[in-house]
Parts: sequence; structure tokens; C-alpha cells
Amino acid sequence: MFRINKLRLPLSNLSSFSPQSQKSRPSYCTMMNYTKAASSQAFNNKKLLFRQLFEKDSSTYTYLLADVAHPDKPALLIDPVDKTVDRDLSLIRELGLKLVYAINTHVHADHVTGTGLIKTKVPSVKSIIAKAGKSKADLHVEAGDQIHFGDLFLEVRATPGHTPGCVTYVTGDGPDQPQPRMAFTGDALLIRGCGRTDFQGGSAHQLYQSVHSQIFSLPKETFIYPAHDYRGFTVSTVGEEMQYNPRLTKDEETFKSIMENLNLPYPKMIDIAVPLNLVCGLQDLSVTPVDA
Amino acid sequence: MFRINKLRLPLSNLSSFSPQSQKSRPSYCTMMNYTKAASSQAFNNKKLLFRQLFEKDSSTYTYLLADVAHPDKPALLIDPVDKTVDRDLSLIRELGLKLVYAINTHVHADHVTGTGLIKTKVPSVKSIIAKAGKSKADLHVEAGDQIHFGDLFLEVRATPGHTPGCVTYVTGDGPDQPQPRMAFTGDALLIRGCGRTDFQGGSAHQLYQSVHSQIFSLPKETFIYPAHDYRGFTVSTVGEEMQYNPRLTKDEETFKSIMENLNLPYPKMIDIAVPLNLVCGLQDLSVTPVDA
Repeated sequence: MFRINKLRLPLSNLSSFSPQSQKSRPSYCTMMNYTKAASSQAFNNKKLLFRQLFEKDSSTYTYLLADVAHPDKPALLIDPVDKTVDRDLSLIRELGLKLVYAINTHVHADHVTGTGLIKTKVPSVKSIIAKAGKSKADLHVEAGDQIHFGDLFLEVRATPGHTPGCVTYVTGDGPDQPQPRMAFTGDALLIRGCGRTDFQGGSAHQLYQSVHSQIFSLPKETFIYPAHDYRGFTVSTVGEEMQYNPRLTKDEETFKSIMENLNLPYPKMIDIAVPLNLVCGLQDLSVTPVDA
Repeated sequence: MFRINKLRLPLSNLSSFSPQSQKSRPSYCTMMNYTKAASSQAFNNKKLLFRQLFEKDSSTYTYLLADVAHPDKPALLIDPVDKTVDRDLSLIRELGLKLVYAINTHVHADHVTGTGLIKTKVPSVKSIIAKAGKSKADLHVEAGDQIHFGDLFLEVRATPGHTPGCVTYVTGDGPDQPQPRMAFTGDALLIRGCGRTDFQGGSAHQLYQSVHSQIFSLPKETFIYPAHDYRGFTVSTVGEEMQYNPRLTKDEETFKSIMENLNLPYPKMIDIAVPLNLVCGLQDLSVTPVDA
């Protein structure tokens, strides 16, 4: 068994371990003052509160964004799931945020959106989806639109292919907006993958063009936050996907061939989820509002 | 059905929606130049590459941290899981990082650590665990120690109670270290919860004291990254847990009473996981190294 005195030699010039007890080597040993409250200037300068939330059954990510520098702390949710609405609204209450928008990247086939339930519980919330999705919602967006919350905003990019109405929401471009930018890609671009194109009006050609023209054209350090991940990844970057995405790094013909030969099963939730999601945010739900 | 012309009225003074098509209202409409590559100064100034990774069966979070400003890009993994070692090592390779340390917050009872498998595949990696855990590892740490990787470091805080050897790793205090600080709390503090104290030498008294003296004493904006989450939360803050943790906001007697009455089932993996994790990083595994 190795012993602590092994640690007295630095392992390499790039890493070292500093046992507190080793008083003879001050260069590797700095006692921390546990009672000192470090000032967090970076945090205080940041406007964006950001939370990634996971729904395990459908492996869906819901994203909470808020401008916490604004006195009203306006917030939005991207791709909320019906099953986790109570969790999300509870968190929003605890953080003192005002939920303004519940937004979908597209008409999902694998889970029921939470927007309807959210609107029933917090009637002031407006649901948003792309016009091209042909789904009900309070507000419909298209390419180039901006969704403002406080002094922050999302821009809308049309990224059809998984469905005709898929959009990617990207945090604003500008010195007062979060850097690196963050792209909420829905099912258009997944981490080392992409959404299927074999149902709901999908098109491999469209998806390939969408990702290359609308997502891979963003700065390489832009964070990719997808609607799902099935292997435990939480985030990627444009640069990583341009280099390592096993499908979208190929030429378009190879990509189309890959997508045609996935042989995926029929989505188990599609017949329940799509009809409900087509009335996104406006289905009739008999739930008592908790916040008018 | 609501229509897009509804959007022409700003919803409130804290949020607005800017349809690109609405040329008559330039104050709500700014076309984004999609080809412009926004410079990401914040990213370039950041040394820390950070990835949160999830293992679904045990709801375990593994954390990857690296100093990407250092030419060697030294990296460490906190709480790797055996099942996801290939995923983690593949990501590390793709990102061009040099994995230096595989670290555990404690001797886990619910999954087998990935440190042994990692060391077999990348023999230069050193495993680290707390001395008080009485488990095998290359390096043993105790309170006040620092683990350096490039110009970044983690400090070690003793947070026993779930097990006697539990520690919390906290990113360094200083202007050149990430702000807000990040606390990897293992099972000591979970988001709106905490680790159980009814086996493996657990103590509700110790856990209460640990969390209050070692974690709640950190700046309120410090991020809490736990070893597990079962409800889809990915991060919290010290301030949030001080205000909303349903157990640790109580006085110690109430906390002990809560912990005594959880009536949790016997952990299904404990008899497999604990013996393997007690030889943390050094068990005999017949796997061919992929990187010497």
C-alpha cells in the first residue's frame, strides 16, 4: 500500500499534491483560511442565472435562464416536461424568479411538454414555439426573432430537419450577454449525435443544412445544450461537435445514408405526446392555479 | 389561437419579444449577423474546463476539471464510475487533456468506483481518497491538503458523517481560481438533501457539524456539486442549501431525528461496491492499458 510520504515528491511539473501536514515544504502547502468569505466578482458581474434540469424517463434536459441583475428577475424555461413541472416551479419560487416564458424547441415526440401545466399553475406565463411547428402556443417565433428577458435575450435560428418546426435558441451576441454564447439545440444537434429524421416530417438533407449553416457557423466555443442526452453528457461545444460528431462531420451523402440506416424503433410515446404537444401550452388541464 | 401580431405589444417592462419580420418596429427588432464570430473573451480568460457527467443507474455525477490554459492541460476526475470509464476517457482524449488524478469523495456504497479501471487503462493516473476512509489509493489526503492541476487547485475539507472518510473538494480561493468557488460535496450535502447516516460508520451528529462548519461557511454563491441527484437537479449553491435544505436548515436535534426515521432500504449495491471501493484504484483488473 502506498503511504502519504510518497506524496512529498511532486508527480510532475504540471500537477502536485500539497499535504497540509507537510510543514517542511511550504511551496506545496498553503493553509486555507476557511472562515474568509471570498468575494465572487465574476458572479456579481454576471446577469445570467442558469440551471440545467434532467427528466430521467425521457432523458430530457429542461433549461432555466433568468436575468438576476434585473429587479424582477425575469426567467424562462426551455423544453419543460409535464412530469417535472412541480420541481421546476418550486425551484423558480425558491430562487425568487418571475417565470415569463415557457418555450419549446419543437413539437416533441418522446415526452409531453410541461407548458400546458405551467400555464395552468402560473397563468401569466406565455408559451412560445416556432411558427413552422404548426402547434398552438401563445407566441410563435421564426428565424431572426429575439426573446428578451430583462437585459438578456435569446435569438431564434431555424434548424429544421428532425421536424420542420425545429429551432435553436442562442443567447445574444454582445458584450453584455453571456460569453461564451449558449445554443439550445433541441433535437437538431445532440452531443455526438442528432435527432432522427424518419418521422414527423423529418429530412436528413434539411437537418444537415441546418446544423452546418445555423449551428456550426457559431463561434467554436459556443456551448451546445441539447434537449436530450442518453449517455450522461451535459454539455458540448460547437468546436467539439464540428470535430467529433460521428454523423455531422461526414459529407451530406454519408450523413443521409447513416440516417436512413438507423433502424430505430417507433417512439413509444409518440402517439400520446405529439397530439398533446400540438396544443402546446394550451391544452385543457383541470389544475387549480397557484399563482395568478 | 393566438397569432403573431399579438406579439407587437411588449408583454411587460421586463420581457419582450422581437419578431424579425416586424420591420416597422426597429426598437424590438435587431437582426443578428449569423456569420460574425463573436469573440469570447470570458472563455479565453478562463483556465477551467469543467464537465459534469451522469451515470443513470446509480444517479452518480462524475466531474471532469482541467486547466486548459496550461500547455499540458492537466485534468482530474472526481467520483468516476466503473461503467462510464470508457465514456470519460474518450472525452478526455477528444478534449486533448492529460488525466492526472482520479479522485473519490468517499468509499461509495452504491456503485463501483472507476479509479481501478482508469488506472489499468492509463497507468500514469494517480488515485486519491481521504486517509480517514481507510481505503487503498495512490495518494491519501486530509483536511487542508491541496490538489494542484496546472495553475488550479482543489482544497480538501473533512466532511465526515455519511462515512468517517467523506471529504469535500473545493476549488481554490484566489483571484486566479474559478469564481464562484465550486464545492464537490460527495454524499455529505446533496441538493435539498444529504447522504444517509445509518451504515458505514455514519453519524448524524458528525454530518450536521461537517456541513455547517465546512460547507455552509463557504461564500453563499459557492456552487454545490454533489455526488448524486435523484430528481434531475445538477447544481445548487451554499446560499440555497442554507435556506432551503429541508434537513440541514433544522437544528441538530431535529436533524438527528429526521435521519433516524428515514427507514431507507439496505443499499442494493453495498456488498459488491464497498469491498471493491476499499481497494479504490488498486484492484486487480485484467484490462490492457491503452495509454502508458
